[in-house]
Amino acid sequence: MIGRAFRLSLFGESHGRCVGALVEGCPPGVPFDEGLVRADLDRRRPGSAPLVSQRSEPDEFEVLSGVYRGRTTGGPVVMVVWNVDVDSTPYDSVDRVPRPGHADYTARVKYMGFGDPRGGGHLSGRMTAGLVMAGSLAKMVLGVLGVSVAAHLVQVGGVRLDREVEPGEIVRAASSGLWCADPSAARLMEEEILRARSEGDSVGGIVEAVATGVPVGLGEPLLEGLEGEIARLILAIPAAKGVEFGAGFRLAPVRGSEANDQFAVSPDGTLTRLSNNAGGVEGGISNGMPLRLRVAFKPTPSIPTPQRSVDLEEMREVELRVTGRHDPCVAVRAVPAVEAALAVALADHALRWLSWVEWGRSLSSGGG
Amino acid sequence: MIGRAFRLSLFGESHGRCVGALVEGCPPGVPFDEGLVRADLDRRRPGSAPLVSQRSEPDEFEVLSGVYRGRTTGGPVVMVVWNVDVDSTPYDSVDRVPRPGHADYTARVKYMGFGDPRGGGHLSGRMTAGLVMAGSLAKMVLGVLGVSVAAHLVQVGGVRLDREVEPGEIVRAASSGLWCADPSAARLMEEEILRARSEGDSVGGIVEAVATGVPVGLGEPLLEGLEGEIARLILAIPAAKGVEFGAGFRLAPVRGSEANDQFAVSPDGTLTRLSNNAGGVEGGISNGMPLRLRVAFKPTPSIPTPQRSVDLEEMREVELRVTGRHDPCVAVRAVPAVEAALAVALADHALRWLSWVEWGRSLSSGGG
Amino acid sequence: MIGRAFRLSLFGESHGRCVGALVEGCPPGVPFDEGLVRADLDRRRPGSAPLVSQRSEPDEFEVLSGVYRGRTTGGPVVMVVWNVDVDSTPYDSVDRVPRPGHADYTARVKYMGFGDPRGGGHLSGRMTAGLVMAGSLAKMVLGVLGVSVAAHLVQVGGVRLDREVEPGEIVRAASSGLWCADPSAARLMEEEILRARSEGDSVGGIVEAVATGVPVGLGEPLLEGLEGEIARLILAIPAAKGVEFGAGFRLAPVRGSEANDQFAVSPDGTLTRLSNNAGGVEGGISNGMPLRLRVAFKPTPSIPTPQRSVDLEEMREVELRVTGRHDPCVAVRAVPAVEAALAVALADHALRWLSWVEWGRSLSSGGG
Amino acid sequence: MIGRAFRLSLFGESHGRCVGALVEGCPPGVPFDEGLVRADLDRRRPGSAPLVSQRSEPDEFEVLSGVYRGRTTGGPVVMVVWNVDVDSTPYDSVDRVPRPGHADYTARVKYMGFGDPRGGGHLSGRMTAGLVMAGSLAKMVLGVLGVSVAAHLVQVGGVRLDREVEPGEIVRAASSGLWCADPSAARLMEEEILRARSEGDSVGGIVEAVATGVPVGLGEPLLEGLEGEIARLILAIPAAKGVEFGAGFRLAPVRGSEANDQFAVSPDGTLTRLSNNAGGVEGGISNGMPLRLRVAFKPTPSIPTPQRSVDLEEMREVELRVTGRHDPCVAVRAVPAVEAALAVALADHALRWLSWVEWGRSLSSGGG
Repeated sequence: MIGRAFRLSLFGESHGRCVGALVEGCPPGVPFDEGLVRADLDRRRPGSAPLVSQRSEPDEFEVLSGVYRGRTTGGPVVMVVWNVDVDSTPYDSVDRVPRPGHADYTARVKYMGFGDPRGGGHLSGRMTAGLVMAGSLAKMVLGVLGVSVAAHLVQVGGVRLDREVEPGEIVRAASSGLWCADPSAARLMEEEILRARSEGDSVGGIVEAVATGVPVGLGEPLLEGLEGEIARLILAIPAAKGVEFGAGFRLAPVRGSEANDQFAVSPDGTLTRLSNNAGGVEGGISNGMPLRLRVAFKPTPSIPTPQRSVDLEEMREVELRVTGRHDPCVAVRAVPAVEAALAVALADHALRWLSWVEWGRSLSSGGG
Repeated sequence: MIGRAFRLSLFGESHGRCVGALVEGCPPGVPFDEGLVRADLDRRRPGSAPLVSQRSEPDEFEVLSGVYRGRTTGGPVVMVVWNVDVDSTPYDSVDRVPRPGHADYTARVKYMGFGDPRGGGHLSGRMTAGLVMAGSLAKMVLGVLGVSVAAHLVQVGGVRLDREVEPGEIVRAASSGLWCADPSAARLMEEEILRARSEGDSVGGIVEAVATGVPVGLGEPLLEGLEGEIARLILAIPAAKGVEFGAGFRLAPVRGSEANDQFAVSPDGTLTRLSNNAGGVEGGISNGMPLRLRVAFKPTPSIPTPQRSVDLEEMREVELRVTGRHDPCVAVRAVPAVEAALAVALADHALRWLSWVEWGRSLSSGGG
Repeated sequence: MIGRAFRLSLFGESHGRCVGALVEGCPPGVPFDEGLVRADLDRRRPGSAPLVSQRSEPDEFEVLSGVYRGRTTGGPVVMVVWNVDVDSTPYDSVDRVPRPGHADYTARVKYMGFGDPRGGGHLSGRMTAGLVMAGSLAKMVLGVLGVSVAAHLVQVGGVRLDREVEPGEIVRAASSGLWCADPSAARLMEEEILRARSEGDSVGGIVEAVATGVPVGLGEPLLEGLEGEIARLILAIPAAKGVEFGAGFRLAPVRGSEANDQFAVSPDGTLTRLSNNAGGVEGGISNGMPLRLRVAFKPTPSIPTPQRSVDLEEMREVELRVTGRHDPCVAVRAVPAVEAALAVALADHALRWLSWVEWGRSLSSGGG
Repeated sequence: MIGRAFRLSLFGESHGRCVGALVEGCPPGVPFDEGLVRADLDRRRPGSAPLVSQRSEPDEFEVLSGVYRGRTTGGPVVMVVWNVDVDSTPYDSVDRVPRPGHADYTARVKYMGFGDPRGGGHLSGRMTAGLVMAGSLAKMVLGVLGVSVAAHLVQVGGVRLDREVEPGEIVRAASSGLWCADPSAARLMEEEILRARSEGDSVGGIVEAVATGVPVGLGEPLLEGLEGEIARLILAIPAAKGVEFGAGFRLAPVRGSEANDQFAVSPDGTLTRLSNNAGGVEGGISNGMPLRLRVAFKPTPSIPTPQRSVDLEEMREVELRVTGRHDPCVAVRAVPAVEAALAVALADHALRWLSWVEWGRSLSSGGG
């Protein structure tokens, strides 16, 4: 479990009974939007073959706890997706001959051989269904507070979106099911994926996420900084290998005079910035600008191309061809997971922030 | 506080009484190496002007709790660096006219005007002294378990180390006080910093860290994954804006067949890999390969070059020149902080892992 | 969620879809004993009318996560009891006219009217089914380590067990389904309950629990002391109003010379004590003696006898007769819940302790 | 560390450099009342010989972090009491011949011989100075919210206060330094302590605490219930062996019709109760009545009367006379520690509650 106010645990296995999420600390009265959960789960499982895995997962979710008459109760919220279309045959041997790029080997050692190896068990990419459902709930909470979260693809293999898009474009793209806020880039990305697939291979990608309407003051300095808390959730997504905020790694070569987001007064008299290289966070605390981040995803490790592995029982090198149903680009399905990770971290910090807002009222009403 | 076993809190203010760290859960009997703490603090404050801030910080640390007769007791360890050379004059106005790139504005809003603004208060880069001391302690714990941690610079402004260095080179560079495992790159980096400084500006950089001797099995899948836990600590370092593991963002454009770290049997009969693109972590769990990561640091925000800001009392635009003593490249002093962040996360997970190792003994001795 | 190593969350509602428990940090390879879960759930729902509620709860549990081929996997364990025999009619008005002794009023205020009021919702005594299942799992973990946990009744209304029983007697009583280790006291307790029931009333009681085989060294001093951690779990049981360790409140009137548990060498050469007034814990840490505690339970608040309440909409006093199916003595069904609370706290601290045991091995093998 | 919003860690050793407390999550702007800290520390160290230990502890505290210009900053608050009058001679042998009733033996085993044995080290009663300072801070926070906390003695050895006192009496007694809200009982208690002391012995006692002005809605059902959270902090006080809320153990023999706190409308039209047997908590949540609890303390274990112990090196029985400076009744000095424990738990839950109060505003202002 992670979080202090909006607290999340994930459970289940890829080929077990279900995958799910438990959220503690969700406040009461949140209008529960089943349609949003369904839409987010559908984006995780786009169904638009041939770009994604051909595993047929209806992903029918059920709320087991914490929602009554269409609103959250204030008690723990538990949501599950039941597993139905489970074919475990292809996974019989992974415990003995680990697949490169997967967690077969680390899981085998860590769990002392007792882990559920079917479909990756508790370490499967399918576990993100739990994260996505928790993210939908977090978005409902954030919606009450005026915060929106959205993500899209900015790179797939060698195809890279070469312009900076507005936060509004990303929000619109996410809600319309578009992979990338730029439709022509989206088409090129699709071609890149098909090409990799036809060659028995896979490609990596980069997802960009944005949150708008974030009040100033979410997060803590240092150890519970907003960037770190978000990064932890982002890197919980299988295949994510890096995360950067604002201009991120592009800040290394530049000068301070270019990097600093200078202040100005906007025409309506409010404070604004001349740039957003910080991505909306300074000192671990949200600064009122759109929160922006990018996440690097490695290529899907499961590929039909032959690879070298080792039979761990006999310590003998073998050639492995990974069969089964797999996406050629895991970054595509990761888009709603990135949104979810961002939303969960923001919901946690927003609820913590509300406490201080109310505290400020008490202080100024003479309490202090 | 973060962590489950080796648990860390940071406290203090830049110009207050002290900065410090509290560690709960440190096991008893760790030989306490005062020299290591001093050396790590010295690297944070290299003293080698003109490359770093001219603030004279003796950084004399004191252990207030948890060490007795040269070993940890098993109780909480508290270490502080007392503040002595404090000149708060330059900071008088930051609460009113926030410095671009700093947390002045976010702190003002979050702390409702009650925060200590002197030198950045609790949000100062000086807070990393606490992290560095905790990191030294974590390294002592890891030393008992055979794990080493080291970091160096791979980029400063436009100067980038253009070859992959061996983990051993980084360990040697770190212990010899060299900024970069490649001495000629180190010289170019120094020149880059001096150039920026002479132009009244600053530069960003990238720090690379490595951990060797990490056993297979540290970390958890998903929410408490090793990468995410490390990233959270890394991003607690002020000015860090991105983190990547292994090949990180360089995995986006490549194919799965190139990215996967295929298995092989090494000449001595043990399992090995043909590459380490994953940076030593798969499925959130350490895989026995060296753990490698890179961190992007933005340029030091405090620069004498004039910048635009706003007088928040009068909501009027003003020009700001930040005086005071500042490093032209914060990444230099961040090197031991990155090491510390990595060491703290690993110590936490190593202690959690020990529990399961002993559990395995109980199971196999007939308990289960 | 509570706990650091063996971590527990409870979820569900009395008349919702289910009640359940999620456990994180359970180590892999624990032989999963379904019979034990079933037996513990059955003791929570003795079925032996007329002493208990007549609600027919088959309490069929299902494992949703974390068990594979009869052993725990090392991933999160989720267990649920599905709700089937739900008649919510009697609870329609509790949100408006709160029942004395229940949480109707506090829940209404806390959850802003959005809570599930049916059968007490998330605050129902039925929630202990989740705790009991988690307790069964904790007992399986403790079993591998040689620790046993058992509880029985020492008081029901005016009937009080007037002799100190041996830990072994309690263990035997618990496994044989006897309420009290003394069969004749058990009979008198049964009569006391029937008497209260026939008079339209209910009675309180005291449960005693014991853990044997607890190694020396579980727990922490001060804030995470073993007694405090156990007490928190014990007081999570609805209707529990007090807890004492060893001689507890009976230590107030006595002298130190009587209270101290003096040391001796037992015939087999091991360390022992001349008494166990401390109940097996000193300085927050287990001392090797049997861990003993007692828990006070208030009488079942739901009674047919008329009581005064207030219609909260009209702020008008009304007379209330609570109908529905209720136990006349909640302490009876609390016995397995007390066992579970003790087992969960011990499993958490046992797993933390294992880490230091293994650490000790590393230290003495030359690591330090 | 414990707590979710107002989070507390204790550190230090009895004869080390200091004892102290670190509090994270304390909101900004709390007027810091040094006089209150000093007064609370003085009550912990009454100085009124011959009733208490003759160790001369000036208990001069210092704030190391988190207070600026007389108010909390919102950053971590660290407070220490420096150790000055340290005579460790009497403790030289406790590691080898453990004192009955102390944690010498459990500490020796847990800390593998590396613990600081001087004066009990980190397990000393002196550690409560840290808890008391944190309690003073918690009281300042609660003061802003209109909540008061106070404690007094209701039993010392055979002397028991035989009437129920009003919360207001306890508050007045606490602020006037009176041990017991009933002055004549206080005199008898003093005699009881002197008698035990003159006989080379010690006595136990019971402390009662009350909190008034607690809003309805603090706490959570089940695992994070208000009673359990308070009990955990209470039982962190060395020598505390039991805790009960409201009528507590006295509820076991009574009927439900007597135990339930029935509702009524008070003359001013607000909701009230006809009794407060629940002690202000129902379902783990505060119900608006005064929060009342009692804590059992065992007699001071250190007594000059000879006791049996064992030389652990030679496993040989020995006779032990504990010399040094010790209180004959630890319950006397525990009074401010009990207050502190209650205040810390309430401050944590009050800050969590504020979040939902503000959430309720957002919901009703159209957000939901």
